[in-house]
Amino acid sequence: MMRNIHRLAGRIGSKGVALRPHLKTSKSKEIAKRLLTGGTGPATVSTLNEAEMLLEAGVRDIIYAVGVTPQKLDRVSSIRSAGCDLAVILDSEEQARAVAEASARLGQSIPALIELDCDGHRSGIGLNDPALVSIGRILNNGSAQLRGVLTHAGQSYGVYGRAAHAELAEQERQAAVKAADALRNAGLLCPVVSIGSSPTAHAIKNLDGVTEVRAGVYTFFDLVQAGIGVCEIDDIALSVLTTVIGHQRDKGWIITDAGWMAMSRDRGTAEQKVDQGYGVVCDELGAVLSNLIVLKVNQEHGIIAQRPGGDAQLPNLPVGSRLRILPNHACATAAQFDCYNVITTEPGAPLEQWSRFNGW
Amino acid sequence: MMRNIHRLAGRIGSKGVALRPHLKTSKSKEIAKRLLTGGTGPATVSTLNEAEMLLEAGVRDIIYAVGVTPQKLDRVSSIRSAGCDLAVILDSEEQARAVAEASARLGQSIPALIELDCDGHRSGIGLNDPALVSIGRILNNGSAQLRGVLTHAGQSYGVYGRAAHAELAEQERQAAVKAADALRNAGLLCPVVSIGSSPTAHAIKNLDGVTEVRAGVYTFFDLVQAGIGVCEIDDIALSVLTTVIGHQRDKGWIITDAGWMAMSRDRGTAEQKVDQGYGVVCDELGAVLSNLIVLKVNQEHGIIAQRPGGDAQLPNLPVGSRLRILPNHACATAAQFDCYNVITTEPGAPLEQWSRFNGW
Repeated sequence: MMRNIHRLAGRIGSKGVALRPHLKTSKSKEIAKRLLTGGTGPATVSTLNEAEMLLEAGVRDIIYAVGVTPQKLDRVSSIRSAGCDLAVILDSEEQARAVAEASARLGQSIPALIELDCDGHRSGIGLNDPALVSIGRILNNGSAQLRGVLTHAGQSYGVYGRAAHAELAEQERQAAVKAADALRNAGLLCPVVSIGSSPTAHAIKNLDGVTEVRAGVYTFFDLVQAGIGVCEIDDIALSVLTTVIGHQRDKGWIITDAGWMAMSRDRGTAEQKVDQGYGVVCDELGAVLSNLIVLKVNQEHGIIAQRPGGDAQLPNLPVGSRLRILPNHACATAAQFDCYNVITTEPGAPLEQWSRFNGW
Repeated sequence: MMRNIHRLAGRIGSKGVALRPHLKTSKSKEIAKRLLTGGTGPATVSTLNEAEMLLEAGVRDIIYAVGVTPQKLDRVSSIRSAGCDLAVILDSEEQARAVAEASARLGQSIPALIELDCDGHRSGIGLNDPALVSIGRILNNGSAQLRGVLTHAGQSYGVYGRAAHAELAEQERQAAVKAADALRNAGLLCPVVSIGSSPTAHAIKNLDGVTEVRAGVYTFFDLVQAGIGVCEIDDIALSVLTTVIGHQRDKGWIITDAGWMAMSRDRGTAEQKVDQGYGVVCDELGAVLSNLIVLKVNQEHGIIAQRPGGDAQLPNLPVGSRLRILPNHACATAAQFDCYNVITTEPGAPLEQWSRFNGW
């Protein structure tokens, strides 16, 4: 984990741009401390609960990167009043009016970034939408504050290799810079130009006009990221420790006590070149047993078998044997737990427990 | 929820057989109180954490229905010492030896049921496997105790309609009764003959030779159960309340703040006659908006759209509108939360919060 953190921090830092890690993956104060510059920010979150927990941990600069609703603005304001510069994102005039109204009502200038749609993936305003400027005006003419623009190349998770990710990174950059220019040409300040996803952050070359890069899942990495070439299997810093509970020898099944309740139902590698089932199997110390995958899961049962087409002999793993499963999607698997058991590289160091903040 | 609970309790009770509800779906002391006879049992659990929480709630008769490992037996013994008759299940001689050894070591006769494979779904010993009797002997000749046999027709989730479920229920019954007879013919006592799944429990006609029926997801029901004809959509007692955060009008998308972190990644209806995406959309009061489904999810974003092929007009749902999503799989969706917000039928009654016990 520390290697993953240092690698991206070094990469983005060397380009003179801020890294704003996304805490949605780890949701942990202990990890925030290690992930964030000086432990205080900048940070990205996906829920207001994360923002409240990070506020407690001393983080002072946060973007809540899911489109805000009117109902959430009082809570946003409370977090700001407690000393954290929390900004929201939005992509409609109705949201801008709600933020301007709440700012006036609460006597507090809530900062907002306009979310841009750079790749058709999800939310965000189109680059040629005249609402871009009108949203900025609604914020600034009201009591709110246009903080900048933000975009996320969600499509980067679906394409393979550094060249493809670099292309989407440039698309992210151009979208954000173009929108920032349009706002500035309309006489609006646009201090923040924020882009990023784990694949594009690791591939981007040119950051001209960008002020910050966001990424989250790289903290732990996972099989989906390995499958699109962003990391190696050996970089994956999160695993589920499980125990063999039985066998169906005629079917070649080894049954464990890590079902979907432990792994999550995420099948993110299903459409990739190598389908990793519900996870890659390692021995207790983390060495990959390369011919095995978690083939199926029920609530509390995992079924380990040969990879489809495999014909190696199944290893001898009696009931009680411990295995470690690498997950498809670190965000989803970590969310099934309320804490991490932390293994350090220091030999003989005691296991630490770091709690997670799930919920909203 | 109370209607679902009463319906199955009435059905199984009228046949003079015990119902042993599975708490893995609800994981709640408040729901256990309502689900279990007199609030004290019998109950089924999928983790020892559930058993410990139910012990605290006064439950005194539990089967831990996931194959036990040697490492878990000290914890089993502690729960038993605290006054709860907790039984384990197993399907191998090596587990039986571990249970016998732990019983001797701990000076406590740990009861175990032999898990039977009635449909090739997952765990369990084959009906003609000579290990059936030898497992019973290892338990009883050691200091442990053969409590009975148990099976679960997991395949019933994959077939449609009462007739098909009744057939699998009869297969469950025959497997369990046959194994119990084989044990008795070998001179072993086999007091408990336990079968069940939500689909088979609602369809079974003949319970001759069976002493108890288990079922879990019927507490809440869900779209998977509705899709195989075990319940109606209107029986589903669990939903996720969400808020509209934006639109992509050219794509016909309504974007909400309930992504997979809220719904889970379960796609249990994907292979059914009607694919419900990531959930059926209702208005805030629970009336189904029948032309809409949750088409896609990201971590904190749900994308609602017309059902594929639909051409009805999208309803006007401005940012801030609240919707309620019915889940594919109640066990998986409930597991994404640490409590329930409980709506009673009493008008104006305050919202109660019931906590869940996740984890292991």
